[in-house]
Amino acid sequence: MTLVIDCHGHYTTAPTAHDAWRKAQVAAHGEGSAPPRYPAIADDEIRETVETNQLRLIRERGADVTLFSPRASRMAHHVGNQRVSAEWSRRCNDLIHRVTQLFPGTFAGVCMLPQSPAADLAASIEELDRCVTELGFVGCNLNPDPGGGHFAHPPLTDPFWFPLYEAMCALDVPAMIHVSGSCNPAMHATGGYYLAADTIAFMQLLEGHLFNRFPKLRLIIPHGGGAVPFHWGRYRGLADMLGKAPLSTHLMGNVFFDTCVYHQPGIDLLARVIDTSNILFGSEMVGAVRGIDSETGHYFDDTRRYIEALDLPAQARHAIFEGNARRVFPRLDAHLKEQGR
Amino acid sequence: MTLVIDCHGHYTTAPTAHDAWRKAQVAAHGEGSAPPRYPAIADDEIRETVETNQLRLIRERGADVTLFSPRASRMAHHVGNQRVSAEWSRRCNDLIHRVTQLFPGTFAGVCMLPQSPAADLAASIEELDRCVTELGFVGCNLNPDPGGGHFAHPPLTDPFWFPLYEAMCALDVPAMIHVSGSCNPAMHATGGYYLAADTIAFMQLLEGHLFNRFPKLRLIIPHGGGAVPFHWGRYRGLADMLGKAPLSTHLMGNVFFDTCVYHQPGIDLLARVIDTSNILFGSEMVGAVRGIDSETGHYFDDTRRYIEALDLPAQARHAIFEGNARRVFPRLDAHLKEQGR
Repeated sequence: MTLVIDCHGHYTTAPTAHDAWRKAQVAAHGEGSAPPRYPAIADDEIRETVETNQLRLIRERGADVTLFSPRASRMAHHVGNQRVSAEWSRRCNDLIHRVTQLFPGTFAGVCMLPQSPAADLAASIEELDRCVTELGFVGCNLNPDPGGGHFAHPPLTDPFWFPLYEAMCALDVPAMIHVSGSCNPAMHATGGYYLAADTIAFMQLLEGHLFNRFPKLRLIIPHGGGAVPFHWGRYRGLADMLGKAPLSTHLMGNVFFDTCVYHQPGIDLLARVIDTSNILFGSEMVGAVRGIDSETGHYFDDTRRYIEALDLPAQARHAIFEGNARRVFPRLDAHLKEQGR
Repeated sequence: MTLVIDCHGHYTTAPTAHDAWRKAQVAAHGEGSAPPRYPAIADDEIRETVETNQLRLIRERGADVTLFSPRASRMAHHVGNQRVSAEWSRRCNDLIHRVTQLFPGTFAGVCMLPQSPAADLAASIEELDRCVTELGFVGCNLNPDPGGGHFAHPPLTDPFWFPLYEAMCALDVPAMIHVSGSCNPAMHATGGYYLAADTIAFMQLLEGHLFNRFPKLRLIIPHGGGAVPFHWGRYRGLADMLGKAPLSTHLMGNVFFDTCVYHQPGIDLLARVIDTSNILFGSEMVGAVRGIDSETGHYFDDTRRYIEALDLPAQARHAIFEGNARRVFPRLDAHLKEQGR
């Protein structure tokens, strides 16, 4: 019996009062005034937004557990400042926590961090600690470009990021590397920015030796690793040219890709070139692409179907759906064991 | 009999005097002085740099014609200003022209454009016209991000670019969308920036309706289209969500991908999801990845092997190696016909 664990779900259907508050918060910041009081949101409202969306689709598609985080495109770290980002992060993470409390068998929390372009990572570490130790979260999303589309931050191998990595290792939680909305008119978020950032992040890691310093650090690159598996030969060749160890030892003890690739040929390629132990089931649902593929009659983001269609040994399938997620997210594993799963 | 036409070759092995002049040009610009005189470079020196590199590999691998352009990473449009970029472009393109004259059966010219971050496209149009009408070039490389790694330019669908597209259509030449070196420490050129830019460019085109306005415009996205074929389902789904026509009619009458994907599984995917009529043989040789793949014993960028290994009808193979290039580069076709090929 395999649990199907979706490592990549966002609360893209949050109650309208939550989004309205954010709008008011940003407007207040622009005017130099205090944000309004955060609204009371009833449990029933949260239940309804989840039951009619994620939970319905989870049931239809047959997943068991979803690692649930705030809507990625609305993290919008480039908006406001450290204080604005910190308050928004707390509201978003608290809302995720409520979802995990209302549906404890289905959702586990992954937090957003209150990153901000001019800020260091102190507030992010504080919020990570709060979410993990007080709210029971099992991971975080880390934005490599909190400026929102111009890639002005130092690479992920830069000491700038080390304090956060230290906190992640101490708490034993991984990060998904995930940019947010784009404020760059040349860069569509889900069609350009996300995949570009995934690809750039992998190459940043390839150029450095981050995991010598942080051997227990675990990073998930979403959207199937961006362009990386399609260009796996290029990356093997670049590692060789740059005098690095083979990717299997240089990076792939610590870097994982999800399965948010929305067609069978893409998933086939992913499973062909990337070791099974580095692939985590994910759907990004309800997310970037919400329609039905006219070529198949199924939702583009019903990624379970593509994995089921792979010719894989049972053990490999189990690893993709469950085993790898338990290994990469040990706090999820502990949480599931507490539930007798 | 099929001609093997490589649509993507750069003069990465240009004579040292050429590169030294560039260095001096940039230094002079920094000091506010005039650049030194461009050095005399003997035909034999050019012959040698080509014969021992590109031509040797072309013969070993069995290509016939290479579309040859200045070294992409050294276009460095972000360096200097319009005047510096214009002079460097002329020098580079003139050097390419000499290669095409020394090896008229093997190389056809593709020019770089003197783009510059703060400049409009007037100088680029002038240089394009010179290269095509005076030097017999058959296409150009267009940099969507002349700022060098922060994506601060308007999307390719913006009217900013229209004058160049008009010139391209009037001259009947296509452009390869190709960024240059990165001045962004977070973005490795050939491992991050190139593939990110390819992906972002495709999504820019997807969001607009550029080819309604320019039905004869033809754009090649190199490196196999960046992340696009791997995420073909995402792009089909996004086109649907954004209310566009299917990709086959919305974009793929005008957009082409090369085969600069350095392993068999990547090329297999490319050929599986992208219509044969949209794929042009390319190797980027001598380029980004110069080593030998220890898994195969062959050069990573010997992309002909991967295509030969595809299970394709003869007609499709002919299209990838020759037919599509003749169609996308009609001036190349005319040039080859003049040569009786």
